[in-house]
Amino acid sequence: MSSYNNNSVRLNAATKVAVFGGTHGNEMSGVTLVNLWMKNSNEIQRKGVETKPFITNPKAVEKCTRYVDTDLNRAFTAENLSAPGGESLPYEVWRAQEINNMFGPKGSPEAYDVIFDLHNTTSNMGCTLILESSKDHFNLQMMNYIKKALAPASCLVLLNEHPLLKYSTSRSVAKHPVGLEVGPQPQGVLRSNIFDSMRVIIKHALDFIELFNEDVEFPPCTVEVFRVLERVDYPRDANGNIIAMVHPNLQDCDWEPLNPGDPMFQTFDGKTIHYQGPGTVYPTFINEAAYYEKQQAFVTTKRETLVASAVKKS
Amino acid sequence: MSSYNNNSVRLNAATKVAVFGGTHGNEMSGVTLVNLWMKNSNEIQRKGVETKPFITNPKAVEKCTRYVDTDLNRAFTAENLSAPGGESLPYEVWRAQEINNMFGPKGSPEAYDVIFDLHNTTSNMGCTLILESSKDHFNLQMMNYIKKALAPASCLVLLNEHPLLKYSTSRSVAKHPVGLEVGPQPQGVLRSNIFDSMRVIIKHALDFIELFNEDVEFPPCTVEVFRVLERVDYPRDANGNIIAMVHPNLQDCDWEPLNPGDPMFQTFDGKTIHYQGPGTVYPTFINEAAYYEKQQAFVTTKRETLVASAVKKS
Ligand SMILES: [Zn+2]
Ligand SMILES: [Zn+2]
Repeated sequence: MSSYNNNSVRLNAATKVAVFGGTHGNEMSGVTLVNLWMKNSNEIQRKGVETKPFITNPKAVEKCTRYVDTDLNRAFTAENLSAPGGESLPYEVWRAQEINNMFGPKGSPEAYDVIFDLHNTTSNMGCTLILESSKDHFNLQMMNYIKKALAPASCLVLLNEHPLLKYSTSRSVAKHPVGLEVGPQPQGVLRSNIFDSMRVIIKHALDFIELFNEDVEFPPCTVEVFRVLERVDYPRDANGNIIAMVHPNLQDCDWEPLNPGDPMFQTFDGKTIHYQGPGTVYPTFINEAAYYEKQQAFVTTKRETLVASAVKKS
Repeated sequence: MSSYNNNSVRLNAATKVAVFGGTHGNEMSGVTLVNLWMKNSNEIQRKGVETKPFITNPKAVEKCTRYVDTDLNRAFTAENLSAPGGESLPYEVWRAQEINNMFGPKGSPEAYDVIFDLHNTTSNMGCTLILESSKDHFNLQMMNYIKKALAPASCLVLLNEHPLLKYSTSRSVAKHPVGLEVGPQPQGVLRSNIFDSMRVIIKHALDFIELFNEDVEFPPCTVEVFRVLERVDYPRDANGNIIAMVHPNLQDCDWEPLNPGDPMFQTFDGKTIHYQGPGTVYPTFINEAAYYEKQQAFVTTKRETLVASAVKKS
């Protein structure tokens, strides 16, 4: 018996697990992996768990576009999920209801235990796990397990529990939502290095779930995360047109420190705009294609160390 | 007087010049540059030339998509340009007619002298000038001038006069069509390094035209080009689904030699597919996002040295 038993967080076995691809239909590593696993899911099955591979936005996948009517990965609000109208709703709102019926209902005891949602980014973010809560000890233990399994390769954790910037994701239907964001990969392109990285992370994540279900106790640990602070937009003119690009010193430098006075943008007439914040931040999602329409050049984060309690199956 | 006079190709001054952006609406360096120049064209004006910046596919630019109905950069066929139907035609066919009326008619003495068409690619092609004819001595001299002006930075020349793979481009309306393809840049993303490279190439190209119009004679020269040989598709199953990715040894290695036996694709179950051709080729447009739908993983080319005659204004 472990010495952590008394303080362990006791949780039910994670028996219902899903892997989502195509929440954004042009993010090809996730789309391709899930399509593969829908043909043959051996690779993602583990003892005592049923892992369901699922294409969340098949219409967007077919068109190789991010979405058809509206961003599915912002659509899982209480309002949307209870909206009347059925198929006359915007496609992704209707689809969110359908997904909520299959994998939720969100917030209910019947909801799936874990949903992995596979995303790609044009940013140079490498392998990134995205968490929505600093209090989810199961997920924190899983992040710790994955990071150790991948070392010396790196896998960072982005924590988005910002009251305004947090959004209603597809994976939020699950009790333990896990976003996986791997880049850089252009939209509509499948790169073997990104595809392979994503595949190995899901392998380790499922291994963790299997061990947990087999009564392995995971002792307390710490997990370094990057907590979302704020969104930074491109500089714009009075008409809302972008007048500058991400500065070459910042481009591709996701997760590296940005200090007050560092170059941040380069205007089209060659002037440098410097970062003016009060202290060092760690930018990420730098120059992500899909975030131009969301008026976001990057997000800033701060480094934080979270403590995860021991977890064990109850 | 130059000693080349007797063998010089004599050509009219190039007084009508256009710079096209947005032929593909999600290729952001060209779109952004042309939009800038439409507000203030000082930078692209030269003595004795009127340079017209022009967005060729504004609907696609607005939607940040490659095209609306059909690829504009394949639409300038004789059949399309003479098709009846007006605005009831597919958008890009109608638009091709409009562009042909403004900058052509294609093949006529009234056509623009030079059209530069600005493109970006997700492939690691660097700066690439695209020629449609090995016999266009004016363009070959321009390529030579640009390459020398940029050295030691490199700028390669892709020659596409393949009887089957050559297509009917927007720029083909001009007497001297010049494609400019700069990458890697994801669709929908503006990268400062790509933007800056494109801008400086256009600067040198317009300087060449100004010098030519000022009666400078350009002596005979040689130009190294990469001639398009054939299109290579992704490996597919019986249903046409892609079953392999560009091999990591080939990914991002545009313009590098691919020898018989070299790894070319990696299947989703981890097998390597090797190049089986008869000799060394130089692949390019490797893993370009827009070419999945054209069933092209890359094109092979061979290196060739073309001889350009001296050129002088008549
Ligand atoms: Zn995504
Ligand atoms: Zn293009």
